[in-house]
Amino acid sequence: MSAVRIAGLCKTFRVSAVIEIDDPADDRLADFRDLSTADRRPDRPGGRGLVIAEGVVVVERLLASHYPVRALLGVRRRIEALAPLLETVSAPAYVATAEVMAQTVGFHLNRGVLAAADRAVPHDAETLVSRANSLAVLEGVGDHENLGSIFRNAAALGVDGILLGPRCSDPLYRRSVRVSMGHVLAVPFACLPSWPGSLDLLRDKGFRVLALTPAPDAVLLRDAVREPGRYAVLLGSEGPGLTAEAMAAADARVRIPMSGGVDSLNVATAGAVAFYELAAAR
Amino acid sequence: MSAVRIAGLCKTFRVSAVIEIDDPADDRLADFRDLSTADRRPDRPGGRGLVIAEGVVVVERLLASHYPVRALLGVRRRIEALAPLLETVSAPAYVATAEVMAQTVGFHLNRGVLAAADRAVPHDAETLVSRANSLAVLEGVGDHENLGSIFRNAAALGVDGILLGPRCSDPLYRRSVRVSMGHVLAVPFACLPSWPGSLDLLRDKGFRVLALTPAPDAVLLRDAVREPGRYAVLLGSEGPGLTAEAMAAADARVRIPMSGGVDSLNVATAGAVAFYELAAAR
Repeated sequence: MSAVRIAGLCKTFRVSAVIEIDDPADDRLADFRDLSTADRRPDRPGGRGLVIAEGVVVVERLLASHYPVRALLGVRRRIEALAPLLETVSAPAYVATAEVMAQTVGFHLNRGVLAAADRAVPHDAETLVSRANSLAVLEGVGDHENLGSIFRNAAALGVDGILLGPRCSDPLYRRSVRVSMGHVLAVPFACLPSWPGSLDLLRDKGFRVLALTPAPDAVLLRDAVREPGRYAVLLGSEGPGLTAEAMAAADARVRIPMSGGVDSLNVATAGAVAFYELAAAR
Repeated sequence: MSAVRIAGLCKTFRVSAVIEIDDPADDRLADFRDLSTADRRPDRPGGRGLVIAEGVVVVERLLASHYPVRALLGVRRRIEALAPLLETVSAPAYVATAEVMAQTVGFHLNRGVLAAADRAVPHDAETLVSRANSLAVLEGVGDHENLGSIFRNAAALGVDGILLGPRCSDPLYRRSVRVSMGHVLAVPFACLPSWPGSLDLLRDKGFRVLALTPAPDAVLLRDAVREPGRYAVLLGSEGPGLTAEAMAAADARVRIPMSGGVDSLNVATAGAVAFYELAAAR
C-alpha cells in the first residue's frame, strides 16, 4: 500500500502523511516560503540553515541520507513518484498545484517537488580522514555552483570525502545541493579547524597532499600519483588559485598539462581530472 | 598614443573611434539592445546571429579572433583597459555609464564591457579534420552552458577542433560564448553534413572514433588511447547520452571508471577527462 493511497488515514511513525494544501499562505509550508529571497544560512540572523532538495532525483538522495527530513512539497505526480520512498520517512508530504507551489516558494519550479531537512551533526575531520583513501581539500571555493560540482564529481569518481578550508561557501546552500545532484548529502565533508596547519592531520594518517596549480614548473599530476597510496588533492578558488601558504604546506605541487597560452580549467573540472587520476592510483 | 586619448579625433582605418553616448535609445547601440530578450539566432525570423562578447577577457579573445568586430560598448574604465587592442580594429568603441548600458541591454552587466561581431564563414569539416590530431564530436548537446564548457575544456586541454552532429545548440549563442570564456571564438568547429555517416570522414583521415558512455561493459578510456594516434571523442547529451546509431558507428565504446551507483558526470566534465587522456596519448 503506497503512502499516497493511505493519505490522511495514517500518521504513525515511519509512514508519511500526504496532505493537500491549496493556500500558499498555509503555515505548514513555512519551510518552503520565499526560497529565492530568504537567507537560510545558519550563520545569518534568522537563518535556520534548512537543507532544501529540489527535483525527484535530489529529493530521493535526501530521503536516503542521514539528514532529518522535515517535510516535502510537490505536485501530485511527483509525490506519487516518490511514494515508495515516503513509506520510510515520518515527514508530511504536502501536495499542491504548480501555481500554489510557485506562490509559496516565490518562483516557478519546473522540477515539481521539494523537500526540507534539518542539518545533521557535522562530520569530525579526524574521523573522516581516518576512514578515507582519497580526499579533496578546498581553500576559498566560494562559488556555490563550483562547490556543488566538486561534490558531484567526487561522488562519481570515488573520492571518499571533502575537507573545507577557509573561505569556502556552505555546501548545503540550496544551489550547491542542486548542482551537486544531491551528492553533498552523501559525500562526507568536514571543516578543518586550522589552516594550513590541519594538513598535518592528513599527513599523520599517511596522506600525500598534492596542491593543484597551473604553474608550469609543477610536477605532472600523473607522475605524482604513480605509486598507489592515500592522496589528498588541494583545490583553490577559481581565479587566484591556492594561497602561497597552502602551496607551501602541500607535499607536492602538481599540474594538469595545459595547452599553450590558455588559462586554467574551471576548478571543478580540474578537480574532476585529478579525482580521475586518484582513482587510477588505487 | 592610445585609442582613448585620440577619441573623436581620428577615425581612419585600423584605429577605433571612442564615442561617448548618454542616450540608451541611441541608434548606434542597436547591436546591444535588449540582449536578454532579443533572439539573435540566425535561423529565427529577425535573428541576425550577432556574436556578443561580455567582459574584458572574452572581448580580448573576440578582438584576437577572425570574427569581424562591429562595435564595442563599455564603461570608460573597461574601454581604457582595452585601448591597446582597439588600435588594431576599425570598429567604434562606445563609452557609456553603467546605467545607460543597463538600460540598453536590459539588465545590469557586472562585466562592464561588450563587443558585437558578425559571424565568420564557417569552417569546412573536411579541412578541419585534415589538420587536427584530436577532435571532439558532439551529438545532441543542446545546453548552451555545457557547449560553452566543452569549448573551454577543449582549448585548455589541446583538442584541435569540435564537430557538431545533430541537435547541438549554436556555440555562438551569447551564453555559450560567455561560459566558454571566449574559446568558442578560437577553437575551430564545423557542422557535420550527415549523421552518423560523416564519421567515415574521420576514419578516412586515420582517426579512431571513441564513443564515451557510462556502460560498464565499455573499454576503459585509458586502455583505448594507450597507442599514440589520432583520436576523436564522441559525446552525447546529458541524460540520454549517445544514440544507438552513434554508438554503433564508433570504433570503440569507452568509459571513465565510475564509483558504484553514481550516475555519470556532466557531459562537459566527462569530456574534459577524455580530452586529458587524449593529450597523454599524443
